[in-house]
Amino acid sequence: MSSVADRESHGAPPKAESRPSQPHAPGAPRVIVAGATGFAGALAAHLLWRHPGFELAAITGRSEIGRRLDELYPRYRVPLQIEELEVDTFAGIDAAVVAYPHAAAAPTVAALCERGVRVVDLSADFRLSSLATYERWYGEHPRPELLEGAVYGLTELHRERIAGARIVANPGCYPTAAVLALAPLARAGLIADVVIDAKQGISGAGRTFDETTHLSMAGENILPYNVARHRHTPEIEEQLAAQGASLPVQFQAHLVPLDQGELASCYVTPTRPVSAEELERLYEEAYRSEPFVELSSVPPGTRELAQTNFCRLFAAADGHTGKLIVLSAIDNLWKGTSSQAIQNLNVMFSLPEGEGIS
Amino acid sequence: MSSVADRESHGAPPKAESRPSQPHAPGAPRVIVAGATGFAGALAAHLLWRHPGFELAAITGRSEIGRRLDELYPRYRVPLQIEELEVDTFAGIDAAVVAYPHAAAAPTVAALCERGVRVVDLSADFRLSSLATYERWYGEHPRPELLEGAVYGLTELHRERIAGARIVANPGCYPTAAVLALAPLARAGLIADVVIDAKQGISGAGRTFDETTHLSMAGENILPYNVARHRHTPEIEEQLAAQGASLPVQFQAHLVPLDQGELASCYVTPTRPVSAEELERLYEEAYRSEPFVELSSVPPGTRELAQTNFCRLFAAADGHTGKLIVLSAIDNLWKGTSSQAIQNLNVMFSLPEGEGIS
Amino acid sequence: MSSVADRESHGAPPKAESRPSQPHAPGAPRVIVAGATGFAGALAAHLLWRHPGFELAAITGRSEIGRRLDELYPRYRVPLQIEELEVDTFAGIDAAVVAYPHAAAAPTVAALCERGVRVVDLSADFRLSSLATYERWYGEHPRPELLEGAVYGLTELHRERIAGARIVANPGCYPTAAVLALAPLARAGLIADVVIDAKQGISGAGRTFDETTHLSMAGENILPYNVARHRHTPEIEEQLAAQGASLPVQFQAHLVPLDQGELASCYVTPTRPVSAEELERLYEEAYRSEPFVELSSVPPGTRELAQTNFCRLFAAADGHTGKLIVLSAIDNLWKGTSSQAIQNLNVMFSLPEGEGIS
Amino acid sequence: MSSVADRESHGAPPKAESRPSQPHAPGAPRVIVAGATGFAGALAAHLLWRHPGFELAAITGRSEIGRRLDELYPRYRVPLQIEELEVDTFAGIDAAVVAYPHAAAAPTVAALCERGVRVVDLSADFRLSSLATYERWYGEHPRPELLEGAVYGLTELHRERIAGARIVANPGCYPTAAVLALAPLARAGLIADVVIDAKQGISGAGRTFDETTHLSMAGENILPYNVARHRHTPEIEEQLAAQGASLPVQFQAHLVPLDQGELASCYVTPTRPVSAEELERLYEEAYRSEPFVELSSVPPGTRELAQTNFCRLFAAADGHTGKLIVLSAIDNLWKGTSSQAIQNLNVMFSLPEGEGIS
Repeated sequence: MSSVADRESHGAPPKAESRPSQPHAPGAPRVIVAGATGFAGALAAHLLWRHPGFELAAITGRSEIGRRLDELYPRYRVPLQIEELEVDTFAGIDAAVVAYPHAAAAPTVAALCERGVRVVDLSADFRLSSLATYERWYGEHPRPELLEGAVYGLTELHRERIAGARIVANPGCYPTAAVLALAPLARAGLIADVVIDAKQGISGAGRTFDETTHLSMAGENILPYNVARHRHTPEIEEQLAAQGASLPVQFQAHLVPLDQGELASCYVTPTRPVSAEELERLYEEAYRSEPFVELSSVPPGTRELAQTNFCRLFAAADGHTGKLIVLSAIDNLWKGTSSQAIQNLNVMFSLPEGEGIS
Repeated sequence: MSSVADRESHGAPPKAESRPSQPHAPGAPRVIVAGATGFAGALAAHLLWRHPGFELAAITGRSEIGRRLDELYPRYRVPLQIEELEVDTFAGIDAAVVAYPHAAAAPTVAALCERGVRVVDLSADFRLSSLATYERWYGEHPRPELLEGAVYGLTELHRERIAGARIVANPGCYPTAAVLALAPLARAGLIADVVIDAKQGISGAGRTFDETTHLSMAGENILPYNVARHRHTPEIEEQLAAQGASLPVQFQAHLVPLDQGELASCYVTPTRPVSAEELERLYEEAYRSEPFVELSSVPPGTRELAQTNFCRLFAAADGHTGKLIVLSAIDNLWKGTSSQAIQNLNVMFSLPEGEGIS
Repeated sequence: MSSVADRESHGAPPKAESRPSQPHAPGAPRVIVAGATGFAGALAAHLLWRHPGFELAAITGRSEIGRRLDELYPRYRVPLQIEELEVDTFAGIDAAVVAYPHAAAAPTVAALCERGVRVVDLSADFRLSSLATYERWYGEHPRPELLEGAVYGLTELHRERIAGARIVANPGCYPTAAVLALAPLARAGLIADVVIDAKQGISGAGRTFDETTHLSMAGENILPYNVARHRHTPEIEEQLAAQGASLPVQFQAHLVPLDQGELASCYVTPTRPVSAEELERLYEEAYRSEPFVELSSVPPGTRELAQTNFCRLFAAADGHTGKLIVLSAIDNLWKGTSSQAIQNLNVMFSLPEGEGIS
Repeated sequence: MSSVADRESHGAPPKAESRPSQPHAPGAPRVIVAGATGFAGALAAHLLWRHPGFELAAITGRSEIGRRLDELYPRYRVPLQIEELEVDTFAGIDAAVVAYPHAAAAPTVAALCERGVRVVDLSADFRLSSLATYERWYGEHPRPELLEGAVYGLTELHRERIAGARIVANPGCYPTAAVLALAPLARAGLIADVVIDAKQGISGAGRTFDETTHLSMAGENILPYNVARHRHTPEIEEQLAAQGASLPVQFQAHLVPLDQGELASCYVTPTRPVSAEELERLYEEAYRSEPFVELSSVPPGTRELAQTNFCRLFAAADGHTGKLIVLSAIDNLWKGTSSQAIQNLNVMFSLPEGEGIS
């Protein structure tokens, strides 16, 4: 075998220092990304760096302090150094994207809020409105008093409240795809039962180095995981309930060997027969004026959505079984995570919703 | 772009002619593969070539006549030339694996049967016992009078009848995974409703050269297809009905970017509550003595099954939803197609069931 | 096996017709793409569609007439229909990108030129200045009289002449990577001998459907091709000669299982010993002010360059062998083909060189 | 993002305990694998478990003690537990495959030798006959006194000495491919200069969990590494020198996104002109009677060699440059590592050379 281990440190930046500076307008809101070393935070930093409406003021991490982000992620051309997150980091900051694991996120979000910084939090800490549900799935909540002020950041469903929120809880990637797929049916009272079978690329595992991400183990594999106990289940259930469908959801996730891409295949037993025409009308009414939700006339492949903030939906009524099938495709790292965070920031700061992510 | 088009013809055999001859015993049954140029037929030829209990007497094709199989498929080291299928090809032949598309297969199967050759047919032509169902999904049947004599070749369920059959209809790859997953529940009268969400590698598309198989289009993609109209649906329904569960089945297929591997995720609404213990007992009783069905204590990844004739099952009862989840992983080209054909041939000729495929 | 063949026609566009129109400025030069159905033409159309300085006036093809490009390539959101190329198509057009195979390109280029349309041609027809060399490698040239007026479109080397050219011969992807890597050494008279070992993703084979692109055959493969006879060899030799190094070049190409990405590993026997310091100085002087050539302090991975117009170079002197090693990474479809075509168009029409491709 | 992290422990074995026992003959030599948790050791254990001529007596590891190998590597169906390596483990053992990193291997090899156990060592510790060279590339040697008794285990070149060796130093994967490619030219005194450009799948990095193996980083990448300082360089040089070609070798390695497969592209400047006929004759004479080296009439793709012990060579004389090109394809984990170890064990114990690996 080859001694790859002793290779050069990966991905140092180009020698030349002629990098373009940020294109943001003078006086643009100043944003930091806390937790920029992971996949989600790094992509958020990349999107903010090139965003004309925000200034990326700093990026922080809990490791890799002092390294430049374009060393860690050469494809993201962000020439900033990773700093430690300190109180000083906040000074003069308008907003923050927090990309920490659950439980670690809440105290940081709290500290930011106390100083008037508005936050889009990518963790699960503020996604569930029910404290009891949170604690059943995640354990003790570090800052439960903040739950009430948080708004669930599925932009299409909660745009108005997001605009005024101090804390926006950015949705999980699976709930993003699944709730966009099912909300029209939930609101119409049409869901008697639902199975959600979701598939996702390996980037969904994040910057985790183990058997689930090693190419020689994740390659040529289709891997179901977290059977009957995936933490996105209660999140989907809460959101569907908020749209009118209170029921237990059968949710199952799978890893498949690609980088970025996610498909939620939803199988709905309707409360009454639904025709193809009614189904089409329901979805057109729901999403006609949504800039980032597209109704597709053929089943969407995730490849079409790669590196975009779009969600593509395909809905069909199966005359044979009487069930409804809704297929929902996104890029799990973009619309499923980081570009949706920017979409939310745009809404929070009254910028055009698609700025920097179109 | 590069001019790859004008490269050398791909994969000529090694110059040296020092190939080992077949290892079969003297007097072994003589088998041909009709349609050896496709993925399924080529693998069947490969498995028969190295099989100690059969002689691979000839391989035929409808194209590529005169080329050696190890030119077309360098990884399969079968140094035979592809011949046209003629009546003479049958002389002295005991059995045939027929790997033609549906409708093209039946006349060939008929001709072989008339000369006393026993057949494992990989097409859909003899899988459905109901002629009406066949014609609804596939059009007119070329030789309906042969339907009655055919046996469905899911070895684990029909071993005794396969042993004496003249025509064995090798199952589709999705029905193989799905029916093995659901048969124990069907027999116990436990299936009130079922959703089957199946994922498969690109080899499932066969030697088809188009957008669904081009690496630059199939790569980085998760692609649902044939929504509410996949032809494996009636095959699964017939087989479940034969096990006691007559109901419409919601079946959905997806292509994911790997070569060989298939997972059927089955979501069952049971007719009554089922405990984890009862579920475990059901599957252990069903498959305890099956050499090629394994019960897994964790959700199986398809990689574990690559290039084997095994099926791995994982069954769980979801206390939250009340549903049963059964995950079934196979190699779509092996247990899903060609190695199951050999398993059936072994049964038909009273050889050890795992000979040549273990 | 699964019947993928009878799936829906792939990739129809979203139903909603609320597509954004082109962002180009009023009065922008009007450009067509001839041959937009292939990978190179489709990407050129995508880049022009979103380019603020050009209007994409029409896209044409020799097949798929009447289909929308976003059906063929859902990821490129170009809602134009593919037209037949007719004389009328040219009316009022300022420029064209021609993406036809060699020999088919020249007559179309000629017809466009006659009507005063400036052309960036992606074929090999105008890359070689020597007619004799062309005919040795490609056969008879359809319009040799145009050779003299054509300028080789490696922007970094021929920017001034490109600015005034009627025909720009866009370089092959391998010559782009190799000549950028070797030009500084050629100009310094340092190349006594050179081996170029190039590797490229499957998109390099274009929209070709055969054994070289099928995921089940191209996957898990490293495939050398066109040994001692790749048509990019004379192109590299001509360009190096123009920089001062007239010598036969050992060039070898390989396909590796990814989509977009290309690495040229160049091994140079120098005419005299070269120190690491001299080498670094040579490359810094050559590329210091080039916006799209970056000198890397570590060996570049092609992933860093995906979907960019950048070329990253790493040069090292091997004290052990005395040889010089230059590694050159690009995206074969971007800098290697279509984004370089846009870079050239920008130069031809006095737009900022990086507009629409940064 | 998805919480993959908290999934079930990966790959527990099937519940059913009906595993077949080892097929080895009574009285077969008893072998252990030390270091069975890595890719190389695990594959060696898999091959020995199913080998009719050896008994796999135990497998040991420096971590994962007590876990079964089929939990760690579900595709390798070896139901043995990983033990700590202790003196008792050696009792009654005839041979060992040692799969430790360099420097860690030598003391274990020494301890085994002292007890009369014959060893195939997969590390670099005994590959270099020159202690000075070893120490320049690897640092101090733990047991230099054993160097003299070790035999370099490229079976095709050193078969007789391997048969009687106490310690066989299994070659590196790159030297295996490169030396088989170049030995005939070296022996004929034809190598004036040589460049070796090697490409390898991600399994070459072994069970290493970092940026070089994460599918979202290694995927869609071509990554050169260890420029001008790869440790396989002196190993290749020593072996070529032993065949008659003493010269510095330009060796460069690259990682490409597949699992198992390796290609060494060798570019030789000959000492005198060599015709295609002479070249063909040289290679046929060299390898005519070698069971595991095949001369190919077309450039070999690595896919053809996957999971085999074969090496395929293609040699061509380039009339244009005067150089010789030799392409050498293997499976880096099989012929490049573990199946070659079994080939060597077969030779050491007078078994048919291909037993258990054909």
